[in-house]
Amino acid sequence: MVTLGELAAHLGCEADSDDVGIELDGIAPLGRAGSRDLAFVSESRYLDALKDCRAACVIVKPDWQAQSPVPALCVADPYLAYAQISAFFDTLPAPPLGIHPGAFVDPSVTVPASASIGPGACVEADAVLGEHVVLSPGAYVGRGVTLGDNCRLWPGVVLYHGVVLGDDCVVHANSVIGADGFGFARRTDGWEKISQLGSVRIGDRVDIGAGVTIDRGALDDTVIADDVIIDDQVHIAHNCVIGRRTAIAGCVGMAGSSVIGEDCTFAGQVGVSGHLKICDNAHFTGQAKVARKVDEPGNYSSGTPLEATRQWRKNAVRFGQLDAMQRRLVKLEAKLDALGEAVSDDD
Amino acid sequence: MVTLGELAAHLGCEADSDDVGIELDGIAPLGRAGSRDLAFVSESRYLDALKDCRAACVIVKPDWQAQSPVPALCVADPYLAYAQISAFFDTLPAPPLGIHPGAFVDPSVTVPASASIGPGACVEADAVLGEHVVLSPGAYVGRGVTLGDNCRLWPGVVLYHGVVLGDDCVVHANSVIGADGFGFARRTDGWEKISQLGSVRIGDRVDIGAGVTIDRGALDDTVIADDVIIDDQVHIAHNCVIGRRTAIAGCVGMAGSSVIGEDCTFAGQVGVSGHLKICDNAHFTGQAKVARKVDEPGNYSSGTPLEATRQWRKNAVRFGQLDAMQRRLVKLEAKLDALGEAVSDDD
Amino acid sequence: MVTLGELAAHLGCEADSDDVGIELDGIAPLGRAGSRDLAFVSESRYLDALKDCRAACVIVKPDWQAQSPVPALCVADPYLAYAQISAFFDTLPAPPLGIHPGAFVDPSVTVPASASIGPGACVEADAVLGEHVVLSPGAYVGRGVTLGDNCRLWPGVVLYHGVVLGDDCVVHANSVIGADGFGFARRTDGWEKISQLGSVRIGDRVDIGAGVTIDRGALDDTVIADDVIIDDQVHIAHNCVIGRRTAIAGCVGMAGSSVIGEDCTFAGQVGVSGHLKICDNAHFTGQAKVARKVDEPGNYSSGTPLEATRQWRKNAVRFGQLDAMQRRLVKLEAKLDALGEAVSDDD
Repeated sequence: MVTLGELAAHLGCEADSDDVGIELDGIAPLGRAGSRDLAFVSESRYLDALKDCRAACVIVKPDWQAQSPVPALCVADPYLAYAQISAFFDTLPAPPLGIHPGAFVDPSVTVPASASIGPGACVEADAVLGEHVVLSPGAYVGRGVTLGDNCRLWPGVVLYHGVVLGDDCVVHANSVIGADGFGFARRTDGWEKISQLGSVRIGDRVDIGAGVTIDRGALDDTVIADDVIIDDQVHIAHNCVIGRRTAIAGCVGMAGSSVIGEDCTFAGQVGVSGHLKICDNAHFTGQAKVARKVDEPGNYSSGTPLEATRQWRKNAVRFGQLDAMQRRLVKLEAKLDALGEAVSDDD
Repeated sequence: MVTLGELAAHLGCEADSDDVGIELDGIAPLGRAGSRDLAFVSESRYLDALKDCRAACVIVKPDWQAQSPVPALCVADPYLAYAQISAFFDTLPAPPLGIHPGAFVDPSVTVPASASIGPGACVEADAVLGEHVVLSPGAYVGRGVTLGDNCRLWPGVVLYHGVVLGDDCVVHANSVIGADGFGFARRTDGWEKISQLGSVRIGDRVDIGAGVTIDRGALDDTVIADDVIIDDQVHIAHNCVIGRRTAIAGCVGMAGSSVIGEDCTFAGQVGVSGHLKICDNAHFTGQAKVARKVDEPGNYSSGTPLEATRQWRKNAVRFGQLDAMQRRLVKLEAKLDALGEAVSDDD
Repeated sequence: MVTLGELAAHLGCEADSDDVGIELDGIAPLGRAGSRDLAFVSESRYLDALKDCRAACVIVKPDWQAQSPVPALCVADPYLAYAQISAFFDTLPAPPLGIHPGAFVDPSVTVPASASIGPGACVEADAVLGEHVVLSPGAYVGRGVTLGDNCRLWPGVVLYHGVVLGDDCVVHANSVIGADGFGFARRTDGWEKISQLGSVRIGDRVDIGAGVTIDRGALDDTVIADDVIIDDQVHIAHNCVIGRRTAIAGCVGMAGSSVIGEDCTFAGQVGVSGHLKICDNAHFTGQAKVARKVDEPGNYSSGTPLEATRQWRKNAVRFGQLDAMQRRLVKLEAKLDALGEAVSDDD
């Protein structure tokens, strides 16, 4: 439970003195928010629904306040304000401090009193743990790993030896950071494994989803800069470098040694080839096939639109004739020009 | 070992009294089934192979019985019958009942005597476990999770706090249900995390493969209805709603808040954009890019066919000229019409 | 630390007697290699950078030795030589021999004295462990699994019952081998699960990345031949058969029962439909949609090139008109021919 006055203080905005004592238990979508819920309006297209709002309070832009039938918190960016106060409503208790007797911590490791290490978690020799780190049950911290302050590993996360995380990072369950990059040299009779001697260095405030894999570098490190956010099941291959604040949605795959700029966004299932350079502020729509460098900011796409399969088949077969169609078109143009001239000459 | 008579009884079909004592040790493909194997014919195109069948017994449609050189079980749908009796041949012993001394179960949790909890499994406070649940080694059940009767979590499965599974669900190894949805608000200097306050609610008889991620909702829950089946490495983002009996093959990714109908099928690697509505009985071929709503049942596809790379390159470059080609085509048509008229006028 | 003489001996190449004592601490890219680093030149386009090289030693082809300002090791294939000596520079200590007291090993299992079993690892009944196997913390070895000599499972790997690995295999963290294939028969009211009675058989020297899923077969086994290499987050469905030395990059998905030849390569995110046969020496570029059999060796691709989204939209909409465009083209050609003849007749 939190009061409207507390939220207003946290957001640094005004609240009517009659309203500061209003108690809130949760946040809910505008349409179903009830008498103990907070709601918010982030886009003007939702204003129609605002007039029927029965929330205890609603976050709006100042211009929209007059349209609210309930007490309002006015801020420049209601969606950001919603994000900023969302943690007040997260009721999950903090995990217990200390080392669970079912955890395995190498005696070489100093565990801060503020840390929480769950049962089955394992910390190998020479790991360095920051203040307030949370190692959930079954998390694995390899030899010589460094975890900054306030890092949280959810259950089953695996950090291989030497991986470095900055402060305030979150890694969701079963993600793997620092496994060997996919490096092999061809022999006539098979493949010669290349030991992956680099590591993975991750900045501050990096948020990593569940089931993610970020591989260690071959010689240099794989690098994820500050404030990068990564969704579930993303794969980042060895020696990629991801610039600050770049956002990577679910199931994106990045091949080795690609260098991604700052403030880029990758929608789901985008694939990036290896050894590419992508400039800052490049944005990719879902499933885009990024097989060339990008040096102009902007939005990029590839693929074909969804069609009924029967119609798609007809068009898809023509894709395989596209070059021939183009050449027929060129021939037609020339022939028509020639004929046009012949007809004019006739006149 | 099972007898033909027992299988006939299970399937509710007739077996010749001379045959009921036939003993079967396994199921095998028609071509290699031997004298203690059961085989089946599910499609008429396999009837040619039936005449050489050396199985102990074969499941067929009634019309095909005369063509079988070996005893037959006759049913309307042989493939379904094969599925229905396949469990007779699964020889893996049930896991031992009780709580392994290497498991970690919060004292607040009541564990039914019919449950099996393996070493390294962890059950947090206030979880509710149904009858006959199996928590394999290293499975993690977060605070306040509800597991219906007969649920089985394979090793390394992680259920975050508050996740609800109905009865008879299976979750294969290392899948993660209830990790935070990918929700952030943009600040000028980075991203503001949005606490994901919803959960994941999963119905009865839902089967989930290995390495799957299903994220918890932002405000409302992510919902998977009864009888949904999900293959390995599928990603379902926050606040998706998946309708009953829908089948999702490997590596499919669904972005946030999409609402999928009943009885849909998604082939491998399909990508679904966020906030879309897909009607019942919509079917998508592999890698389809579902970036718009679908309100007509039917089959849908996108992409281009596989070609030799040398040929593909020529056609792919023309894709980037398609709009120009279309405009040249329109111009040609107009020019040809004009010329045709000019020629006619001349006559 | 290793000496140049030791590396020359390992590679079977000559080193100048003045140089054999040179001590090396690491391998570094040509551009940043310092006085205790080894470097290598694998392609002639890097020869320009060789003249400024400050490494302690460089691996080159014999023809390039004259251009090296530092001592050189001359070999026919410098990239392969780099791979062959890379393990000398891997400083991670071997895991401790023996069974950690926090591991769970069924009494029926014989553990070789050369094996290492970490805390939280679990070995079920009747598993067979080869010499020098390493089961990292939290790895799970199901009932009756066979692991050949020198196999290494990284943390959180799950091998289901009956899975067989040959010698010298590596499986990176949180991969799952042997989960149920995605097999269900349709009932009117839902799906009937088909028990997956096959297993997974993996050859020698197979390298499997992190977060991979390889499902057990329905009746026969899923088979991965010797010397196959598999990157992170690959999914291989039930009853696939992968030929020797085939390389599969990250996020590739293969549907059930496909049979892949030897020496194939799959780039990232390729999707292979079910029941296909792919011949030896077939190579697929990233995201290729392999929905038909391939019986000619060579390179294959599909998809469209990356474009600015605004331009892509214009072309993509024309894709849906391709068949109509083709028909208009045919009509134009006929009309133009007719007109051409009419004009000639006029003359």
